[in-house]
Amino acid sequence: MNVAILGYGVVGSGVVEIIDRLISTKGKLKVTKILDLKDLNDERLVGSIDEITRDENVDTVVECMGGIEPAKKFILACLNAKKHVVTSNKAVVSKNFREFSEIANKNNVGFFVEATAGGGVPWIHNILRAKRIDEICEFSGIINGTSNFIISKMENEASSFDSALKLAQEKGYAEADPSADIYGDDVAAKASISTSIAFDTNVNFEIPTAGIANLKIADIEFFKSKHLAVRMIARGKLKNNKLCVCVEPQLFLNNTLEGNTPGYFNTVTFVGKTIGELKFFGAGAGSLPTANAIVQDLLDCNDGLFPTYSFENNFEFDETLILSSYLYRTTAEDALPKNAIMISPGYFEIYGKHPLEAHKIYQDLLLEDPDAFMASLQETV
Amino acid sequence: MNVAILGYGVVGSGVVEIIDRLISTKGKLKVTKILDLKDLNDERLVGSIDEITRDENVDTVVECMGGIEPAKKFILACLNAKKHVVTSNKAVVSKNFREFSEIANKNNVGFFVEATAGGGVPWIHNILRAKRIDEICEFSGIINGTSNFIISKMENEASSFDSALKLAQEKGYAEADPSADIYGDDVAAKASISTSIAFDTNVNFEIPTAGIANLKIADIEFFKSKHLAVRMIARGKLKNNKLCVCVEPQLFLNNTLEGNTPGYFNTVTFVGKTIGELKFFGAGAGSLPTANAIVQDLLDCNDGLFPTYSFENNFEFDETLILSSYLYRTTAEDALPKNAIMISPGYFEIYGKHPLEAHKIYQDLLLEDPDAFMASLQETV
Repeated sequence: MNVAILGYGVVGSGVVEIIDRLISTKGKLKVTKILDLKDLNDERLVGSIDEITRDENVDTVVECMGGIEPAKKFILACLNAKKHVVTSNKAVVSKNFREFSEIANKNNVGFFVEATAGGGVPWIHNILRAKRIDEICEFSGIINGTSNFIISKMENEASSFDSALKLAQEKGYAEADPSADIYGDDVAAKASISTSIAFDTNVNFEIPTAGIANLKIADIEFFKSKHLAVRMIARGKLKNNKLCVCVEPQLFLNNTLEGNTPGYFNTVTFVGKTIGELKFFGAGAGSLPTANAIVQDLLDCNDGLFPTYSFENNFEFDETLILSSYLYRTTAEDALPKNAIMISPGYFEIYGKHPLEAHKIYQDLLLEDPDAFMASLQETV
Repeated sequence: MNVAILGYGVVGSGVVEIIDRLISTKGKLKVTKILDLKDLNDERLVGSIDEITRDENVDTVVECMGGIEPAKKFILACLNAKKHVVTSNKAVVSKNFREFSEIANKNNVGFFVEATAGGGVPWIHNILRAKRIDEICEFSGIINGTSNFIISKMENEASSFDSALKLAQEKGYAEADPSADIYGDDVAAKASISTSIAFDTNVNFEIPTAGIANLKIADIEFFKSKHLAVRMIARGKLKNNKLCVCVEPQLFLNNTLEGNTPGYFNTVTFVGKTIGELKFFGAGAGSLPTANAIVQDLLDCNDGLFPTYSFENNFEFDETLILSSYLYRTTAEDALPKNAIMISPGYFEIYGKHPLEAHKIYQDLLLEDPDAFMASLQETV
């Protein structure tokens, strides 16, 4: 199978490295074209997408450029040229999953998204596999390696948020513009894709999202004193044909897998009606783990094993499916609701809130105190 | 696909329940015959294996009787009658994996073993999938739900070993003869199968094995005081064409996933050269989780997706690949080597031992003190 790569960055170069090196893929996979604006010393380099869509020898296109455009235009052009598409681009898939899937179906080609969520963790494959038997009723977990890397650095080396972020950028985990990682939009995109995969539905609503941009070393120390660790979390829950999804920092007891998930690792969980709870832990970012997920998709594609997605369910969004206590750190106590209880100077807890309520309180609070921080507590705590 | 079930026990009845109930398998899977000695009120019941092997309408046979004979004879008869075989029987597979696999290949039928190790955790599938790209260099973890259930009961409810074991038997996790679970042979069988799957080798050596039969409440309390939790563990390591596998109780820090794995759950880990460490957590025993693994195999079988196993590698067994400190609890201090250090009355630590050395010390100790207990400490501690 001849493969073209769009974007020779951290992930794209990892894909080329794995395919070029592996004996097991020799004769199966061959990278014949690479599209990138950089001047690579590689004879496979081409300068325009047309050289790929018009090449009848290219079977499959790997898109790992990131961002919405021109990625969307290129993916559509490749699908319409009857090329299979494998992508790691969560931003463009979360906004256009249904459209991409329908066009792939119409053209009898495969559309593969394993690398959009969970890095090297075989998350999407295992949800799809479980669903052959099981109804999935919940998913949750740490699904953003960059934010977890930052939190870990702050926990273990008392790095400031800014220096931990800078290190993540140097190591290639975070983008030059890190806002998607630190404000939660990257997690929300992955939560959206996971929701579609797990629950067979199109996500056409805004996912309530709060990030870790305001996390301070003093917060980490305070959580430690309470045997807690903060993690950036996606959660989705389906019950009685109603759906709730949210993205927010969450506090875990320090004896949980989530509370001990280090560095750029991810821990993701789903719950099926017969299988119960299944957890997956592994590298959530980095060149080779994410490239590994792409090459897994390529091998399935080569075997004609195309994933099938359904968007047929229309669920009402019901925030009351998720109920947690929330912790707020602020210097503007008066901007909090009256039922907020001070549990330590500057830290306030509000019991039993649903995500939209809690995030609204946080948005209002940020107007008074732009440095305020919010995290939910584990539902079971 | 028409399916016959051998053994209508905890697992077999779960398989029938899932297939009979699921819409998603309707038209794909149908249970047409059940072989069991019990007098079931089910028109599919037959009394002899010949009624299955001679039935041209039976495509696939699920063997979940357990034990070596007649399971071995039945599996061979079914494979030779050109039936696909799906089994949850770790004892018979660990002793005959290569033979079963070769006969299945010769007859162009599938041989499936997902349910032999890890219960509902998709352990074998994910190792085989990872190996399409990766070289696996290590595996480890909690792979016996029964022993973990017993330990958990002792930890959380201060049950005695005997009453925890009795409860496990009542719940259907442990056999009437529990020796395979408490002396480690069940874990050794799963370690053997995992070794073959991960490293493409036939296991024709005895795996060094120690069990939890001598674990006491006082041990659990002592470990807790040291922030440790004991777990029954399988480990395998490949390096420079040498292999080490062992089975033993191991002490984990109480902030690890292993140390917090509760009840009948399993946590299993493998390490691949590009993917790094991947961990899987889920139900390791019980009717529906194990039956779920069997139905996954049946669905793959129905799609013609047969796993391929290789036994081509011949590795030298080298115990020096694994090095741990070991803890011994005994009243017979004099029977221990002189370098044993008493860390608390009755508890002794010996630094830097390989599994064969450490287990030999334990065997010698048991001659003097039949109640002695041994556990390794995490390699990194």
